[in-house]
Amino acid sequence: MRKPIIGVMGGGTSSLKIRKDAFDLGKLIAKKKWILLNGGRSTGVMDASAKGAKRFGGITVGILPDNSIQRASKYIDIPICTGVGEARNNINVLSSDIIIALPGKAGTISEIALALKNGKTVILLNNPLGSIFNEYIEKNLLFLSRTPQEAIKTVELILSKKK
Amino acid sequence: MRKPIIGVMGGGTSSLKIRKDAFDLGKLIAKKKWILLNGGRSTGVMDASAKGAKRFGGITVGILPDNSIQRASKYIDIPICTGVGEARNNINVLSSDIIIALPGKAGTISEIALALKNGKTVILLNNPLGSIFNEYIEKNLLFLSRTPQEAIKTVELILSKKK
Amino acid sequence: MRKPIIGVMGGGTSSLKIRKDAFDLGKLIAKKKWILLNGGRSTGVMDASAKGAKRFGGITVGILPDNSIQRASKYIDIPICTGVGEARNNINVLSSDIIIALPGKAGTISEIALALKNGKTVILLNNPLGSIFNEYIEKNLLFLSRTPQEAIKTVELILSKKK
Amino acid sequence: MRKPIIGVMGGGTSSLKIRKDAFDLGKLIAKKKWILLNGGRSTGVMDASAKGAKRFGGITVGILPDNSIQRASKYIDIPICTGVGEARNNINVLSSDIIIALPGKAGTISEIALALKNGKTVILLNNPLGSIFNEYIEKNLLFLSRTPQEAIKTVELILSKKK
Repeated sequence: MRKPIIGVMGGGTSSLKIRKDAFDLGKLIAKKKWILLNGGRSTGVMDASAKGAKRFGGITVGILPDNSIQRASKYIDIPICTGVGEARNNINVLSSDIIIALPGKAGTISEIALALKNGKTVILLNNPLGSIFNEYIEKNLLFLSRTPQEAIKTVELILSKKK
Repeated sequence: MRKPIIGVMGGGTSSLKIRKDAFDLGKLIAKKKWILLNGGRSTGVMDASAKGAKRFGGITVGILPDNSIQRASKYIDIPICTGVGEARNNINVLSSDIIIALPGKAGTISEIALALKNGKTVILLNNPLGSIFNEYIEKNLLFLSRTPQEAIKTVELILSKKK
Repeated sequence: MRKPIIGVMGGGTSSLKIRKDAFDLGKLIAKKKWILLNGGRSTGVMDASAKGAKRFGGITVGILPDNSIQRASKYIDIPICTGVGEARNNINVLSSDIIIALPGKAGTISEIALALKNGKTVILLNNPLGSIFNEYIEKNLLFLSRTPQEAIKTVELILSKKK
Repeated sequence: MRKPIIGVMGGGTSSLKIRKDAFDLGKLIAKKKWILLNGGRSTGVMDASAKGAKRFGGITVGILPDNSIQRASKYIDIPICTGVGEARNNINVLSSDIIIALPGKAGTISEIALALKNGKTVILLNNPLGSIFNEYIEKNLLFLSRTPQEAIKTVELILSKKK
């Protein structure tokens, strides 16, 4: 059985609290033996979530916008050098079975939007954007959560239904 | 002198009022001798804005997600077959000097977000999303407008400052 | 009726003779009222073919690897900023109705190969690579020519059969 | 230390002999504890090399042209759904530290060409295309080999020099 790939999206520059949540998400994903996927860079939510996963023995995949690994997080096992810039946001979401989105700016918003456009399930974690995506909440594509634990429980529930 | 390229983004399925605005934008862009760029398909804002431009002698460029022109609007002069799916949204915004965004769903939101992420100027036309992008309004990257005429005036102003 | 888009591929650094052929191709494409498409940069075959087309009133489209127009040829009317690096070679060939390939190095070879992989017709102009693509010659996807005039005649013949 | 990622390229439809070589390459890459990367589909060199790696405990990454995993090889641990069609060939080569190319048709030729264009080292395995890429052999970017063992030895030598 292929392991589920859980995408973690969020700001490249983030508050301590958000990076702590990202770290915890990485930890919980690793403990579930799922694969963590993110944007691969060495900053913000990307770095923190990969660090959390690696500390607890997980596997981490980073989808870089760049054509080299120079700016990759050291916590990424498998850096994918797309060389397509921000267009890589679409690859992030297509490659994830489920996406968890922490707060972020335009980059993160684009990932949530691209995920929903592609029919992917997104779980917002303390991300205030739920209101603009109301119709996707009604379609059961978008879910809200307030703690990493709650987000992971929602992932579990959705994965169990997919089987 | 190269002609400015004005990107017009908005829903693939849109109300009559929105398609009317899109048509009028196309018309006004053509009259200014600017080039209209959009997502190229034969529906919603894409089709209506291209139709408006062609009726008034404009040039239209369509950046298709597809690898063929089968689903292109007949009002597109130059269809670009990217074959990259929704990742083409990033090409839309990078190729536009300025972007005007009408209301739309996740696809349109992703285009606004990608444009701002790339530092491109965006003018919202009756699009209620301004509130979630407040910081970009403060940075003078995002502008609001209520009629096609007002949007075009903002384009003119920005273009005149770029010179 | 949409105008045919003819892709002209070839080296970014090229001999005078090759640039002369590229210029002549651009001229002949413009005279036929076809649209010229190339990689958009200000060097080699890209610059020369666009110059030829513009001198004779043609329309030129440049599919740039870059996310800005800084390195675009001044003879390009419509620069498409893909931001996807060399992956734009696939967009070049998908967007062309027919491709003419002058000599070039790895970049040009990749374009010929991607075109054939996508089932696009390619006409080689004094390009010695025919031998490695023999099976595509047999399938009538790949044609050889020795002068710009001969290449253009082949384009005409193929376009007339497509109608 | 990040594990080296070795890209294995070659035809989607291949002879038994070539698939045997691909399987052996996968096996040898796994035994070296390197990561195998390929185009991810369930046919030809892609499927055979991934199978070889998995049989011997390796990790396999597949860069799919598709936007879903429907056509992925079952021997791929980490499928990356790029959704960019043949443009994914550029992602394959950018993401590999070194590329080994078995015989193939236009798709494989495009990968060799894109790799060299991007300055990546390529090792041909019984692939007759060396002659058209002579200048890259002279630049020590392109190497020839006749057995999987020989190809792997060349990889080892190059990796040891990179340190």
